Amino acid sequence: MRDVAVVGVGMTKFGEIWDKSLRDLYVEAALGAIENSGVDHIDSMIVGCMSGGLFVGQEHLGSMLADYLGIKNLPASRVESACASGGLAFRHALIEVASGMSDIVMASGVEKMNDISGDGATYALATAADQEYEVFHGATFPGLYALMAVAHIEKYGTTRDMLAAVAVKNHDNGALNPNAQYPFKITMDTVKSSVMIADPLRILDCSPITDGAAAVILTTVDIAKKLGKPYVKITGSGHATDTIALHSRDDMTTIASATVAADKAFKMAGKTIKDVDFAEVHDCFTIAEIMVMESLGLYAPGKAGEAVLKGETALDGKFPINTSGGLKSKGHPVGATGVAQIVEIYKQLTGQAENGRQLKSNPKVGLAQNMGGSGGSSLVHILEVA
Amino acid sequence: MRDVAVVGVGMTKFGEIWDKSLRDLYVEAALGAIENSGVDHIDSMIVGCMSGGLFVGQEHLGSMLADYLGIKNLPASRVESACASGGLAFRHALIEVASGMSDIVMASGVEKMNDISGDGATYALATAADQEYEVFHGATFPGLYALMAVAHIEKYGTTRDMLAAVAVKNHDNGALNPNAQYPFKITMDTVKSSVMIADPLRILDCSPITDGAAAVILTTVDIAKKLGKPYVKITGSGHATDTIALHSRDDMTTIASATVAADKAFKMAGKTIKDVDFAEVHDCFTIAEIMVMESLGLYAPGKAGEAVLKGETALDGKFPINTSGGLKSKGHPVGATGVAQIVEIYKQLTGQAENGRQLKSNPKVGLAQNMGGSGGSSLVHILEVA
Repeated sequence: MRDVAVVGVGMTKFGEIWDKSLRDLYVEAALGAIENSGVDHIDSMIVGCMSGGLFVGQEHLGSMLADYLGIKNLPASRVESACASGGLAFRHALIEVASGMSDIVMASGVEKMNDISGDGATYALATAADQEYEVFHGATFPGLYALMAVAHIEKYGTTRDMLAAVAVKNHDNGALNPNAQYPFKITMDTVKSSVMIADPLRILDCSPITDGAAAVILTTVDIAKKLGKPYVKITGSGHATDTIALHSRDDMTTIASATVAADKAFKMAGKTIKDVDFAEVHDCFTIAEIMVMESLGLYAPGKAGEAVLKGETALDGKFPINTSGGLKSKGHPVGATGVAQIVEIYKQLTGQAENGRQLKSNPKVGLAQNMGGSGGSSLVHILEVA
Repeated sequence: MRDVAVVGVGMTKFGEIWDKSLRDLYVEAALGAIENSGVDHIDSMIVGCMSGGLFVGQEHLGSMLADYLGIKNLPASRVESACASGGLAFRHALIEVASGMSDIVMASGVEKMNDISGDGATYALATAADQEYEVFHGATFPGLYALMAVAHIEKYGTTRDMLAAVAVKNHDNGALNPNAQYPFKITMDTVKSSVMIADPLRILDCSPITDGAAAVILTTVDIAKKLGKPYVKITGSGHATDTIALHSRDDMTTIASATVAADKAFKMAGKTIKDVDFAEVHDCFTIAEIMVMESLGLYAPGKAGEAVLKGETALDGKFPINTSGGLKSKGHPVGATGVAQIVEIYKQLTGQAENGRQLKSNPKVGLAQNMGGSGGSSLVHILEVA
């Protein structure tokens, strides 16, 4: 396999973007990444999108987006793994460059979630769960993550404050991210008094419904050197699934797919979690960030919540998590999220994070963890300073 | 890139399968392929599915199907390129094995199209066209292909009989395929007197709405040799898009994406169309088969229809096309179709086609062409006797 690098990134503002369509958002992010990287062409593109069909009535997104991007006859693939679609796009782009089939591949993600009416978004998102065994019986994602939160609370004594601290910390970071949907700080009290969605999860424990797109350019390390722009190496990639339905799991308090995907990524990179300096993780709900921290081996089971409360994962903590603001503050356009995580890792590793968000610890190794559904799939990538 | 082979295949009966769900169909095909190939595990699987979201309310298909297949933590990706989703799954499986990321990958496809009520299938399929510029204004796929047929008739004098001959020939072949949805012969008169759908296309010019799944196992040629089962080499792969909307094309009488994808596949294989012995092509409508024959360079523009009438593409013709019965007679579960084409090529190249359908010409090289929408994407693969 050839060594592969990320040589440039682009993303749109995340939010309720009423004046741009899915294709507008995608092209803005894609052109941004192409310009940022300095490449004069791409050989292929891979689009992560969870449900163009349900959100905007559009499938065949590879063809549609390559067309609107104006690149004639480009090989363009759409991949899907629910909210991990972006991470999956990144992995398949990595494999395509590593294989020698293509030299320059754009990994990208997009979702337009606000155009659907009524409870359409809740229905569309629920198709990431088991339609026949979970959704048909009334389960939605806040409900499923609430079950996981209750199990975690019961088993480990996780507290309301620990959950709230995740949201507060991610908003602290997101306030420094010009592309964040909610670029402002919140307080513990605001979270704890916000409206209840699915006990114990309140609205400020939940990531929002978001429109947005992100794109990154992958190429060989050899080509990256010649481009003369900042680049980072992709040294590890792991992908794993788990049972799609929560009731089939041995343990609801851990994300097994994240553990397995991380193990694979670490093995490929020849590293352990101790070698990693910071991470973007999939905080679709506050409890998710805590569970993922434990599933990655960063903290022992039941110990992550306390670490968040102590500020260990804050911007100036010993292991910063979600410096971008995470899904909670930056927003969560489900197909784009996994790629937007790579955008943040790239910026941090190349010293380009905006507005005082840049880590002062001079990080060398970053990790991105992106997951689908209630952890039915996970992608983990490790990126390193070249 | 490592040399890659197909070592085993599986598929379900295609048709209106009321007593099996999407997951049932998938697992049946997948277990069939695993058993047929003799592998004792798979490292990864890639699922082609056009619209699980719209047809059955289920996305996150990689997780759901790996789970139901009973393979814990398997990396499982879903890919989509409308009706070319199966061909795309095959290409990404090829790239994954060629890269060295995985040794044994299952390429698979599934679609459950009959469970959706009312005109839902027509709407779901139309999401392969440009929702904002075509579908919103009332276009459906029979309508779009009818426009292409009219253009072809105007430019080349293509006749009603030429279109009908495609359907008759494919039903002749499908009558010999135990997995075909419509395994019976039809006559020119039946086609020409069948109900009009979108002038000049009648119901028997159109492929049906189908439930079904197909799967094939890819591995390195080295591993294939050790398995001791029949295998075929994948020597060429090409992927290209075109404008998703028909009105943006320079020429509506040709499938440019098929031409570009075929050129890439031929270049990779070091072959030309003259080296190919037979093909499975994407006959979603009778006019499509004629246009693809010309786009692949098999016949000059405007000359393919006459060749079909003369029997040149029949089972005993000089270049057999759609020996499986094609989409027309075998059926067209859109996500599975591209993989089912590979199943037929594998069977023909290894002498395993059933019921007297086996080509007597001792074929050495087969080609599969799968496309999405009105040709907005095409995948072309070349397979050869080992």
